Amino acid sequence: MTKKPHNAFYAQSGGVTAVINASAAGVIETARKNKHKIGNVYAGRNGIIGALTEDLVDTSKESASSIAALKHTPAGAFGSCRYKLKSLEENRAEYERLIAVFKAHNIRYFFYNGGGDSADTCLKVSKISKALDFPIQAIHIPKTVDNDLPVTDCCPGFGSVAKYVAISTREASFDVASMAKTSTKVFILEVMGRHAGWIAAAGGLASTSDSPLPIVILFPEVVFNRKKFIKKVQDKVKLHGYCSIVVSEGVRGSNGKFLSDQGLTDAFGHAQLGGVAPVIANIIKEDLGLKYHWCVADYLQRAARHIASKVDVDQAYALGESAVKLAIQGHSAVMPTIKRLSDSPYRWKVSSTPLSRVANVEKKMPKKFISSDGFGITPNCKRYLEPLIKGEAYPPYKDGLPKYVVLKNKLVAKKVGIDFKL
Amino acid sequence: MTKKPHNAFYAQSGGVTAVINASAAGVIETARKNKHKIGNVYAGRNGIIGALTEDLVDTSKESASSIAALKHTPAGAFGSCRYKLKSLEENRAEYERLIAVFKAHNIRYFFYNGGGDSADTCLKVSKISKALDFPIQAIHIPKTVDNDLPVTDCCPGFGSVAKYVAISTREASFDVASMAKTSTKVFILEVMGRHAGWIAAAGGLASTSDSPLPIVILFPEVVFNRKKFIKKVQDKVKLHGYCSIVVSEGVRGSNGKFLSDQGLTDAFGHAQLGGVAPVIANIIKEDLGLKYHWCVADYLQRAARHIASKVDVDQAYALGESAVKLAIQGHSAVMPTIKRLSDSPYRWKVSSTPLSRVANVEKKMPKKFISSDGFGITPNCKRYLEPLIKGEAYPPYKDGLPKYVVLKNKLVAKKVGIDFKL
Repeated sequence: MTKKPHNAFYAQSGGVTAVINASAAGVIETARKNKHKIGNVYAGRNGIIGALTEDLVDTSKESASSIAALKHTPAGAFGSCRYKLKSLEENRAEYERLIAVFKAHNIRYFFYNGGGDSADTCLKVSKISKALDFPIQAIHIPKTVDNDLPVTDCCPGFGSVAKYVAISTREASFDVASMAKTSTKVFILEVMGRHAGWIAAAGGLASTSDSPLPIVILFPEVVFNRKKFIKKVQDKVKLHGYCSIVVSEGVRGSNGKFLSDQGLTDAFGHAQLGGVAPVIANIIKEDLGLKYHWCVADYLQRAARHIASKVDVDQAYALGESAVKLAIQGHSAVMPTIKRLSDSPYRWKVSSTPLSRVANVEKKMPKKFISSDGFGITPNCKRYLEPLIKGEAYPPYKDGLPKYVVLKNKLVAKKVGIDFKL
Repeated sequence: MTKKPHNAFYAQSGGVTAVINASAAGVIETARKNKHKIGNVYAGRNGIIGALTEDLVDTSKESASSIAALKHTPAGAFGSCRYKLKSLEENRAEYERLIAVFKAHNIRYFFYNGGGDSADTCLKVSKISKALDFPIQAIHIPKTVDNDLPVTDCCPGFGSVAKYVAISTREASFDVASMAKTSTKVFILEVMGRHAGWIAAAGGLASTSDSPLPIVILFPEVVFNRKKFIKKVQDKVKLHGYCSIVVSEGVRGSNGKFLSDQGLTDAFGHAQLGGVAPVIANIIKEDLGLKYHWCVADYLQRAARHIASKVDVDQAYALGESAVKLAIQGHSAVMPTIKRLSDSPYRWKVSSTPLSRVANVEKKMPKKFISSDGFGITPNCKRYLEPLIKGEAYPPYKDGLPKYVVLKNKLVAKKVGIDFKL
C-alpha cells in the first residue's frame, strides 16, 4: 500500500493584487497534477490567521473551472491578512499552534504568497523544522504591487498596476489636452508606493515617441522642492498647453514629513486625513492659479484585473507553479524568482533564491532610473519597465461586467478543536 | 458644371468623453461618403472658439485610418471648450463673426457635439438662418457623461463611464472583501455627477445575483442623512464584513451645501479644496472607527476608453452618422436621439427630436430608480442601465499601451483675416 502524500497549506498575505489569485491557481493546478506527491491544498482563510484558527479552505471542493477562473479574478480569493508572526523566542505558542494544526491535517508544505514581511514570516516557519523538530517545507511566492522585493527582477502584481497607471495617465492626459484651452490645464494623479517610486515611475511610460505627453513625476525618493516643481509644471504648460502630474503617496518635504500630512482640519476643527493629490492641487492653485483636476486611484489601481498585464499574469502563475515544483524537489526556505534574460524581445525564466536573501530587504528604485531633474524616468528605467506592462489578459465578461469567480471556500472540519486567541 | 457642395463645420463642446471622437468619426466618414452633398468637414480648433477665431482644422488632410482610429480614441481630438454663446440680442457681433467665417469657407452645415449648454448654442446658431438671413443647418449631436439630456434614451459618453464605475466598484469590492478581516472594511469611491445621480447609480450594477456585493450609494437627489447613512454602512459591514460606498460629487447636506464643501484649512490656515470621498471617510472614522480607503476617480472615469462600452461606442458613432444624414435631408435645429425598442434583448434605433425640446432641459433620475431607503438602485433602474454597459470595444495596443491617434490638425488658411477678440 502506498503512503498517503502530505497536504499543503497555501495562504495570501498583505495587500492583494490583480494577479495574486493567478499564483494561487498556479499552486493548486500544479499540486493537482502531482497528486502522488501532494495531497490536498488547504488554503488559509484570511491568510496565516486561517492556519492559527484552524480555518482551512478545502480547495479540493472547488471545480477545475473555478480554479482556472482564479487566473482572471483580482484580489485574494481566500482572504488575506496583515498579520506578522513574532519570532520563535517571542511567541513560541504561535508556532506550536501552527504545528498542531499542520500535524492534525497532515500538512508538510507551506506556501506563503506575499511581500517582504511575508517572506520574513515564511523564513520563520521554515525554521520550525529544526527548532521544533517538525518537518515542513516553506516556500515563499513573491507578490507585491510595490515591486520592492530583492533578487527577483520584478514582483507579480506590479506589472498590472504599472499598466493601469500608464494607461490612466495617457487617457487623462488626452482628456486634459482637449480641455486646456478654456478649462483644466493641470491634472494630478496620486498613486501608491509609500517607500519606493516604482508605481509613480510607470506614469512615465504613458509618454512615448509616437505620442509624447508632458508628464511630471513626484517620487518618494526625491525630496519635494516646491520652487523647482512649480518651474517644471510652468515650463510644460507653456510648451504643451497643459501638464499631467503623477505623484506618489510617499512624497516627503524637506522636513521629512509626508506631503499628504498637512494637518488638515475641517470647519469644526476636526482633523482630516487627505491624500497628497489635493495638496499638490492646492500648490498649483496658489503658485500658478491654473485650473486643475485631481484623482486618487487608491485600490482601483491594484484591483484593476480588467486591464492586467499579460506578462504579469503569466509570471504570477509561473511562480505559483514553480513553488510547488520546488517543494516536490525537496526545497525549503526558498522563493522562486523572475530572471530577465533580455529586454527586447523580452525574455524571462523562473529561477529561485534562498529566503534569507529576501526577508527584510527592500529594493529601492536605482538612482539611474530617475532623470537628473528628479521629475521623470530615464531611458534605462523605460527599458526596465516596458516589458512588464506588455499584453492584455482580458477576463471573460457577462452583461458588460467581468466574470470574477467567488469560491465556495468550504472549510475543513476542525481536528485540533481548541480555539486559539490571536 | 456641377456646383461645388457646401462645407460643414464640426465642433466638440464641454467636458470630453471616451467616445465623443467616435461621433466625430461618424460625422467625417459619413460626409466623406456623401461628397456630392457635403464638401469638406472643418473642425473647430477647441470647439466653437475655432469658428470665432477662424482656426479651422481641415479634416480632409487626415487619412482614412486616422479618422477610423477616432473610434477608439478618448477625449476631444480637435480640442473642446467651455464657451457659451450669448443670445443674438446680447452679442450680435459673435453671430456676425460666425457668419463671416462660414461665408468665407463656404460652410452651410453646423454640427455641434455636446451637452445641454451646447444644445442651446446649437439652437441659437440655427436661428441665424432667419434672423441674419444666412442659410445654415445646425444639428446637435448629443454627448454627456451626465446622461441628463431629455428625449434621447441615453447620452453617448455615459455608458462608458457607467461601465468604468461598475467595473471599478466590483474590483475594489473584491479587494476590500479580502482585506476586511484585519484591515480595510470600508471603501469609498467618488464619482462625477454634480446634479444627477446617473453615474453613481452605475455603481449599483457591480452587484449581481451571481456576485452580490454590499454597496451603498449616495445620490445628489437624496439629502445626506448622517445617522441613516451610518446605520446602513454598519448593517452591511455586520452582514458582509465590509462595505463599498459610491458617492456622487454632488451630494448635499440638509443645509443645501455640497458635502465636499467643508471649509477645510491646512496647518497654515489656507483653504483646501477637497473631494467628497475624504469627507465621507472622516465620517466613517468618527462614527464607526473602521479602517477605510477612498478613491476619487475624476477624469479617469470619463477618459477610460480602454474599457469603453461597445453599445456606447456604437451609439456615439451612429449619432454622428445620423447627424450628417439629417443635414443632407435638409433638417435643421434637430438632434438625433437614441430610441430604446426593448430592454432584453437590448434593441435600439436612432430617431430625432427638435432642438427646442432639448435646450436647457435637464433629465433627472426618475424617483422610481432610487430604492426607498435612498441608498441603492431599483430593479427598474438596473433594467435601464444594464444594456448601456454591454460589450467591450477594446482599442488596439502597442507595447502594452492603447494606440490612441493624435491628428495632424492642420488649419485651413485664414480668409477673413481680421482677428476676433473672444
